[in-house]
Amino acid sequence: MSVYDTLAQLRIDLPGARTPAAAYVAYVQTGQLVFLSGHTARREGQPWVGQLGGGLTTAQGQVAARAVAIDLLGTLQAAVGDLNRIRRIVKLTCLVNSSPGYTEHHLVANGASHLLTQVLGARGEHARSAFGVAQIPHGACVEIEMVAEVI
Amino acid sequence: MSVYDTLAQLRIDLPGARTPAAAYVAYVQTGQLVFLSGHTARREGQPWVGQLGGGLTTAQGQVAARAVAIDLLGTLQAAVGDLNRIRRIVKLTCLVNSSPGYTEHHLVANGASHLLTQVLGARGEHARSAFGVAQIPHGACVEIEMVAEVI
Amino acid sequence: MSVYDTLAQLRIDLPGARTPAAAYVAYVQTGQLVFLSGHTARREGQPWVGQLGGGLTTAQGQVAARAVAIDLLGTLQAAVGDLNRIRRIVKLTCLVNSSPGYTEHHLVANGASHLLTQVLGARGEHARSAFGVAQIPHGACVEIEMVAEVI
Repeated sequence: MSVYDTLAQLRIDLPGARTPAAAYVAYVQTGQLVFLSGHTARREGQPWVGQLGGGLTTAQGQVAARAVAIDLLGTLQAAVGDLNRIRRIVKLTCLVNSSPGYTEHHLVANGASHLLTQVLGARGEHARSAFGVAQIPHGACVEIEMVAEVI
Repeated sequence: MSVYDTLAQLRIDLPGARTPAAAYVAYVQTGQLVFLSGHTARREGQPWVGQLGGGLTTAQGQVAARAVAIDLLGTLQAAVGDLNRIRRIVKLTCLVNSSPGYTEHHLVANGASHLLTQVLGARGEHARSAFGVAQIPHGACVEIEMVAEVI
Repeated sequence: MSVYDTLAQLRIDLPGARTPAAAYVAYVQTGQLVFLSGHTARREGQPWVGQLGGGLTTAQGQVAARAVAIDLLGTLQAAVGDLNRIRRIVKLTCLVNSSPGYTEHHLVANGASHLLTQVLGARGEHARSAFGVAQIPHGACVEIEMVAEVI
């Protein structure tokens, strides 16, 4: 089944490539690897501000992480033209805007990981790191970067 | 000398691949590169909880980082079948659960770096970043991710 | 135009490869990719200590990030021999020593990104992540790691 059939079933509309907030580009391909810039969580076109363990719940963080994964897929589509050309999502790095005592970053990151395997199946299974950072640009609650392999 | 002779001399028993704590996989190989997920410090099968500069000393952090490196080698062995096939440890990223005033993350990370060069010799010499993060999943004191090159 | 003509115009003297502060190496090449270790900000040969949002301004952070980018180019030159062999700067990860309320890490990172595109033109345009960390080795204000592609 085409990735686009799955996206339609999930009622997901992919955005275009993320417009970088500063002096960099959204992705760079080198050989068969595509490195995507860190994408910060957004909601209704604005930074999704907040901190896990300091106002936001794990469930809210998961929704934010899922939204970032959709934005990453939008950028990835712009990078490679057709998501069916993705051989594998290689690696995610999930940064969670985290209060000193919050320790469920891995559960927040699952919001992104589940979306990727829903859309891409086994090709969406990735290596991953998740951890809590002191802050994120614009005060966003989650930032995720990705490495993907294309055919 | 085989990597396994060295491990035997050091009396190190490699574990199997780390079981991911959430919706991801322990490693992904793409071309000749293997990306390993962030491995959090564990002790006696439980998260090695604590903060550097907030209860844990640099020496304790080094022991934790060394333990993570052994776990990474266990995962790497599961990924490639035989550690003698490792051409190079390319890169480590060492995250240290750090109080605001703690500044010896590089010394903590040496616990992992020394182990890798002990076991793999020149093939174990790697690029590295080390820094202090706000928190780590399960409250672990150290998390390390790795990129390795196989023959 | 040669990269070295541009550097001369900008009156930039490249340093040699950074001497690692601990048990790792400044760079590792694998295939056509060069992974550079995290380079911490230095000023007059000493760690550039400070925190964004806690004493240092965004403008000061940009100067520090630019200095790190010059040091990274020095290491990259040592790695590949001739910067004209650089096909692309692939990825920067910019860690900003950040107070809990500071949210302009992307602007700090621009100090490095602008320098790279000034020196390398389109080949200097990179994917990037920037975020705030709890601390950096030696208390430095900025740490940046890089992936570059060589011809």
